[in-house]
Amino acid sequence: MRIEEMTRDEFVAAVAKRPVVIVPFGACEAHGPHLPLGTDSYQPEALADEVARRLGGLVAPMVRYGQHSSTKKMPGTLGVRMETLKVLAIDIMESLIANGIDKIVLVSGHAGTIHLAALKSACEEIVENHEVRLMMLTDYDIAFKFTGDYCGEEPDGHGGTIETARVMAIRPELVRNRRGKGSCTSSNYMVVCHPEDHYPDGYVGDAKKASKDMGKEINKRIADELSQMVQKNFEG
Amino acid sequence: MRIEEMTRDEFVAAVAKRPVVIVPFGACEAHGPHLPLGTDSYQPEALADEVARRLGGLVAPMVRYGQHSSTKKMPGTLGVRMETLKVLAIDIMESLIANGIDKIVLVSGHAGTIHLAALKSACEEIVENHEVRLMMLTDYDIAFKFTGDYCGEEPDGHGGTIETARVMAIRPELVRNRRGKGSCTSSNYMVVCHPEDHYPDGYVGDAKKASKDMGKEINKRIADELSQMVQKNFEG
Amino acid sequence: MRIEEMTRDEFVAAVAKRPVVIVPFGACEAHGPHLPLGTDSYQPEALADEVARRLGGLVAPMVRYGQHSSTKKMPGTLGVRMETLKVLAIDIMESLIANGIDKIVLVSGHAGTIHLAALKSACEEIVENHEVRLMMLTDYDIAFKFTGDYCGEEPDGHGGTIETARVMAIRPELVRNRRGKGSCTSSNYMVVCHPEDHYPDGYVGDAKKASKDMGKEINKRIADELSQMVQKNFEG
Amino acid sequence: MRIEEMTRDEFVAAVAKRPVVIVPFGACEAHGPHLPLGTDSYQPEALADEVARRLGGLVAPMVRYGQHSSTKKMPGTLGVRMETLKVLAIDIMESLIANGIDKIVLVSGHAGTIHLAALKSACEEIVENHEVRLMMLTDYDIAFKFTGDYCGEEPDGHGGTIETARVMAIRPELVRNRRGKGSCTSSNYMVVCHPEDHYPDGYVGDAKKASKDMGKEINKRIADELSQMVQKNFEG
Amino acid sequence: MRIEEMTRDEFVAAVAKRPVVIVPFGACEAHGPHLPLGTDSYQPEALADEVARRLGGLVAPMVRYGQHSSTKKMPGTLGVRMETLKVLAIDIMESLIANGIDKIVLVSGHAGTIHLAALKSACEEIVENHEVRLMMLTDYDIAFKFTGDYCGEEPDGHGGTIETARVMAIRPELVRNRRGKGSCTSSNYMVVCHPEDHYPDGYVGDAKKASKDMGKEINKRIADELSQMVQKNFEG
Amino acid sequence: MRIEEMTRDEFVAAVAKRPVVIVPFGACEAHGPHLPLGTDSYQPEALADEVARRLGGLVAPMVRYGQHSSTKKMPGTLGVRMETLKVLAIDIMESLIANGIDKIVLVSGHAGTIHLAALKSACEEIVENHEVRLMMLTDYDIAFKFTGDYCGEEPDGHGGTIETARVMAIRPELVRNRRGKGSCTSSNYMVVCHPEDHYPDGYVGDAKKASKDMGKEINKRIADELSQMVQKNFEG
Repeated sequence: MRIEEMTRDEFVAAVAKRPVVIVPFGACEAHGPHLPLGTDSYQPEALADEVARRLGGLVAPMVRYGQHSSTKKMPGTLGVRMETLKVLAIDIMESLIANGIDKIVLVSGHAGTIHLAALKSACEEIVENHEVRLMMLTDYDIAFKFTGDYCGEEPDGHGGTIETARVMAIRPELVRNRRGKGSCTSSNYMVVCHPEDHYPDGYVGDAKKASKDMGKEINKRIADELSQMVQKNFEG
Repeated sequence: MRIEEMTRDEFVAAVAKRPVVIVPFGACEAHGPHLPLGTDSYQPEALADEVARRLGGLVAPMVRYGQHSSTKKMPGTLGVRMETLKVLAIDIMESLIANGIDKIVLVSGHAGTIHLAALKSACEEIVENHEVRLMMLTDYDIAFKFTGDYCGEEPDGHGGTIETARVMAIRPELVRNRRGKGSCTSSNYMVVCHPEDHYPDGYVGDAKKASKDMGKEINKRIADELSQMVQKNFEG
Repeated sequence: MRIEEMTRDEFVAAVAKRPVVIVPFGACEAHGPHLPLGTDSYQPEALADEVARRLGGLVAPMVRYGQHSSTKKMPGTLGVRMETLKVLAIDIMESLIANGIDKIVLVSGHAGTIHLAALKSACEEIVENHEVRLMMLTDYDIAFKFTGDYCGEEPDGHGGTIETARVMAIRPELVRNRRGKGSCTSSNYMVVCHPEDHYPDGYVGDAKKASKDMGKEINKRIADELSQMVQKNFEG
Repeated sequence: MRIEEMTRDEFVAAVAKRPVVIVPFGACEAHGPHLPLGTDSYQPEALADEVARRLGGLVAPMVRYGQHSSTKKMPGTLGVRMETLKVLAIDIMESLIANGIDKIVLVSGHAGTIHLAALKSACEEIVENHEVRLMMLTDYDIAFKFTGDYCGEEPDGHGGTIETARVMAIRPELVRNRRGKGSCTSSNYMVVCHPEDHYPDGYVGDAKKASKDMGKEINKRIADELSQMVQKNFEG
Repeated sequence: MRIEEMTRDEFVAAVAKRPVVIVPFGACEAHGPHLPLGTDSYQPEALADEVARRLGGLVAPMVRYGQHSSTKKMPGTLGVRMETLKVLAIDIMESLIANGIDKIVLVSGHAGTIHLAALKSACEEIVENHEVRLMMLTDYDIAFKFTGDYCGEEPDGHGGTIETARVMAIRPELVRNRRGKGSCTSSNYMVVCHPEDHYPDGYVGDAKKASKDMGKEINKRIADELSQMVQKNFEG
Repeated sequence: MRIEEMTRDEFVAAVAKRPVVIVPFGACEAHGPHLPLGTDSYQPEALADEVARRLGGLVAPMVRYGQHSSTKKMPGTLGVRMETLKVLAIDIMESLIANGIDKIVLVSGHAGTIHLAALKSACEEIVENHEVRLMMLTDYDIAFKFTGDYCGEEPDGHGGTIETARVMAIRPELVRNRRGKGSCTSSNYMVVCHPEDHYPDGYVGDAKKASKDMGKEINKRIADELSQMVQKNFEG
C-alpha cells in the first residue's frame, strides 16, 4: 500500500500494526539508447510495491533523483549532490520515525558508489539517534547474485542484460529496439571532468539478450529474496 | 511528455526544440479524513502532464516531499526541512540547465509559506547565476481566483471544496465519504509546538460541496490559465 | 526598556519579573524617493519601545538587516541571505532563552515573504527545542487591517500611504517631499534577475495622501492592538 | 551620515563620490555592575559617526550582536555563534559592494578573539572575491595604545578605566556608581564550561578612576587616529 | 621527497619541474588484537614515499584520520564525519593547485565505502572547478588483485593476511603475536547502531599466515604497479 | 606513547588509567628561506611526545594542516579553511571522548589568530556538550615568555630566533644556512588580497642568532612548563 494513497486515518490504522515501510530511491539517468531515463526509478518502485503487498508493508513516496558520477554529463541525467541526497534521506526517515514507524527499508534503484554512500551515511546517523530497525540496500545487491544465470561470464552492468530485461517486464512500452552490446573503458583511477568519455555506449552488457520473460523471472526472484530478507530481519 | 519516460536520445531530440520543462513539487501531507496524503502531489502532477501535453513541454520527475508547518505533526505528514527543499530544488534546476534547458516552470501543489519561500529562494539563486527563464507558482495561486465561483463567501482552504473536488476528478477512488465542514482557529501569531491544535478538523472548507464534475471544471480552468501564462511568459 | 541600556544587574532584576522581550527586526531597503532606507527599522523600533513601555517589557537589540527580493537591486538596499537571517534569529532567541527569558515577541518591520519565512522557520525550530512562548509577526499584519480607512479601495503597499505616514510620525525630518503615486507591474510569476524592473517607482500607493497626524494615529492603533494581543497571548 | 537616514536617491548621489563606508559591529555583553550591556555598541557607533562626519564617509546600519567567550554565561550577554557572525559580515559587505562601494572600514567595539577572527575571516573572503579596499579593526586596537596614559602600570581591560570613561562620555546616564576595581584569574589555558568563574567581578581594571572628561579625551584621540589611518589607507 | 621537509624555495624549485604530488590519507582504526591502530596510515605513507622516490614526485603532509563505519565503535578507532573528510580533502587539493601543482594522486590506506566516497566526491568537485589531472585510489585497489597469490580461496580483508604482512614489513615492532583467524558475520543489509557486533574478532582473514617477507613482496608489487599507473596516467 | 602505535587492546589498557591525551596540531607553511615547511608540525609533535613520555600520557595522530592568513599565498603554504579546521578538531575530540578519554590537551604549533580561534571555538563547543577536561594552547604561548632571554629587545616572531633554534634541535638536517634577519611591515589594519607583500622576507627576527643548543634549551623549558601546567590542570 502506498502511503500517498491513504488518508490520515487509514495511515494511523496501518501504523498501529507496526508495518515495515519501504522507501524507494530512484534516479533519472541516461541508460543507453534503449532504456528510459527513469529506469532506476521503475525498478525499485515496482519492487517496493510487490514486497509491501506480500508483507503488508507500506511504501513511502519515492525519491526520483539520485547522485551520479560516471553518467552525470550524459544527456538526460538529472542528479543532485551527495550532501543533498543525504539530508533528504535523513529528513524523510526522521519524518517516518516521528510518525511512529520503527521498521524502515530503504531500497535504491541506482547503485553509484557515492549515491549509496550518501544513503548509508544518512542511515548511520539515523540509527545513532533513533530507536529504529533499518535496512538499506540496492536491488542490484540481489540482482547481481543472479547475473551468471543470465549472462554467463560476460560482464553485465548499467543498462545491460539484467536491467533491460527488468524494465521490459515493468514498462515494456518504454524500451527501444536500438540495443546491442555496450562496454566501457577503465579510467585507470583518474577522476576526470568528462567520465562519459569512458562510457561510449552509455551502457555495459548485452542488451539484446534481454527479454520480457527473463525480466519477469528476475523481478520475481528479487522480490522473493527481498521479502524473505525483510521478514527475517524484522521478525520478533 | 515525462522526461523519465524518454530515452537519452529522445531527450536530446526534445531539448533541441527548446521546450518548456515543468518541475512539479508535491507533498505527503494530512488532508483531513477524506483526502489522500498525496493530495498535493496528484494535483500538480496531473496539471503538469496536461500543460506539457498542450504546449509540447516536458515534465521533470516529481518531488513528492515538501516542507510543512501547521500540519507537520498530523499523522501521515512526511516532510523535509526548508534548507533541504531549497538545495534539492537548486540541484534539480542546475541539472536541467546543464542539460541545455532554458525555460523552466516550477509548480508546487503545496502552498505553505515556508515551503514556497524555500522554492522562491532557490529560484532567485538560479536566475542570479544562470541564463534561464524561470517561472514559479503554486496551482493554488490560480485556483483561489476561482474560489468565489464555487464557495461563495465561505472560507475555503487546505482540504476544502476546491481541493476535494480537484482530487475527486483526478483520483476519485482515493476520496473518502467522511467529509463535512472543517475550520481552524487562529494562533494569533503564536508560533507553537503543536500547531495542529488550531486545526481540529485538519481541513478548512466545505468538503461536502465538492464533486467530480466541479473538480474537472476547476482543473480545466487552471490548465487553461496556466497554459496561457506559460505561453505568454516564454514566447519569443 | 531597552536591554542594551541596562546593566547586568538591572537585567537580572528585570528578568526575575518574567517580562515579555520584544526583538525588533528591521531592514535597510530602498523605499522610493521620499522615504529613508531605514524605514523598516524605524517603525518596529518605535513600536517595540512603545509596547514594552506599556507592558513593562524589554526590547532586545535590533537587527537592522533583512532579506530582500523585489527591491534587492535597488540602490540602498543592503540585505542578507535567507539562511543568514535564520541562523541570526535562532542565535538571538537561544541567547535570550539561556538568560531565562520565556516570553518572546519577534516583530519584523520588513514583510518580504522569504524574509518572514526565514524568521518563521527560525521560530519553529525554537519552539521545537525550547520551553518558550513565542509570538512572531510583522507590524504590517496589523497595519494592513486599517488600510481601507486611509486609502479606500486604492492599492497601498511598500512605501505607500500607510508607511509614509508612519515614518512622518516617527522621523519627520527624514521624509522628502518628492512623493507621488507609485505602482508596480506584475512579474506574472516569473522569477527574474532584475525584479526592480517591475517596480519603476520603487513604491506602491499614494504617498502624497500621507500626513504626520495620520501616521501618529496609525502608529497608536498598531501599538494598541499589538499590546492587547501580547497581553492576551502571554497572560497566565 | 548614516545610510539608514538617506533616501535611495541621496544614497546614489553619495556613492557617486566614492565615500568610505564604516560598518560598526557592536555587542550586547555584561560589563560589570556599572556599565550598560550595550557598551560595545555605543563606542563604535559614536566613533563611526564622528569619523564619517570628519571624512565625508557613510555609516552602515550597525550590527548589535557579537560572539562571546569569557562572558557568554554572564547575565545580559546576548551573543551569536562564530559562523553566524561571519556570514552576516560577508553578506553585509557583499551588499555594500553590489551597491558600488569600494572602500569599507569594519570597526568592532567588541574585541573577543573568536569574534575578531570571525570578522577577519569574513574580510579575507571578501578581498579574495571582490575588488574592494577593506580595513578592519577594533577601536581597542587604538585605545590600548593610550592605556598607560590613564592607568599607568595597572592592568586595564573589559569594563575598566578606559571603557568606563568612554561610555561616561557617550551615554553618561547609563553608567552606574557601583564601580570599583575588577580583576580576573587565569584559566591556565583550560577551556571551561563556565568561564565566568574566572571573572568574579565581570570587569578588569579600576573603574573608579574613569571620568567623563577622560572619556571625551580618549574618544577624541581614537577618532583622531582612526581618521588619519583611514585617510592614509584610502587616499589615492 | 616530503613537502614538509622542504623549504619554501626548495618547494618552488621542485614545483617548476611539474611533479606529481601524492597525498596520502590514513586512518586511526582498530585492526584486531595484533595490528597497530595506525595500520592504515603506515601503509600509504610508506607507499607514497617509495613511489615519489622512484618518480621524482612530492609527498604532501598526511591526513591521519578517516571516516569509519563497521569499526567506528571499536576501541581505538578515531574518526571524522564524511562531510569533514570531504572538505578537508577539497581544501588540501585546492591549496596544492593554488601552488601550481597540476598532477595529484590521492592514495587512501583506508578503504571504507563512505570514506572513499567522500574522497571521490571531493575529487569530482576539484576536477569540475580546476585544471588538474587527478588520480584517486586506495592501495587495496591494487593489493586485492594479489590476494589469491597469498590467501588462495580464503577470504582476506581488514587486518588479514595481506594487511598484517604489509605492516610487518613496514613497522615490524608494532605487530603483536596474538593473531589467528578472524571472520565477520553479515549484517544482512541492516544498518545498526553497533556494527562491531558483526565483527567479533575485529579482523578478517588468517593473520598467522602473514610474514615480513611476504609483506615486503606485496609492498614492492603495489609500488611497482602504482608507479607504472602513475607514469602512464600523467605522461605527456 | 602514540595512539597510532598501539593495538586496540593496548589502547584499552591505557585508557583504563585515565591518561591525558595530547592532540598536536601542526601546519605546512612557508617559514622563510631557512626553515622547512613542516616547522609548525615538528615542534608540537616533539613536544607532545616528550610531555606524554614524562606524564604517561598518550599522543593522538597529528593534524598536519592549519589555517593561514599572512602567509597563505607564499609558496609551500598548504592550508585549510577556518570552518574545516574547526569541524576536524570537533570530530577528533568527540572521537576521543567516545573512547572514554576525559583529559585532552590540544597543542597547536601554528599560532595564527584565525587558526587558534577555530580551535578555541571547537573546544568551547566540546566543553558545552561533553564532560571532559580540556586544555588548549600553542607552544608559543609558552615560548614567547622566554623571548627576551634569547632575543633581548629585538622583535622575534614567525621563523625567527626562537623558532629556528627549536627546529635546529629537532630536525637539524632540514635547516638551511640562508638565514639572516627578517622583518615585516604593517598592513595598517588593511585586509589585503596579497598579505605576503607585507612580509618580504617571510620571517621575522634574527635567524642567525639561533643555535641547536639554544633550541634544545628552549624546547626543554617549554616541555618543563607544559608538563607542570598539565599536571596542575588535570590533577585530582
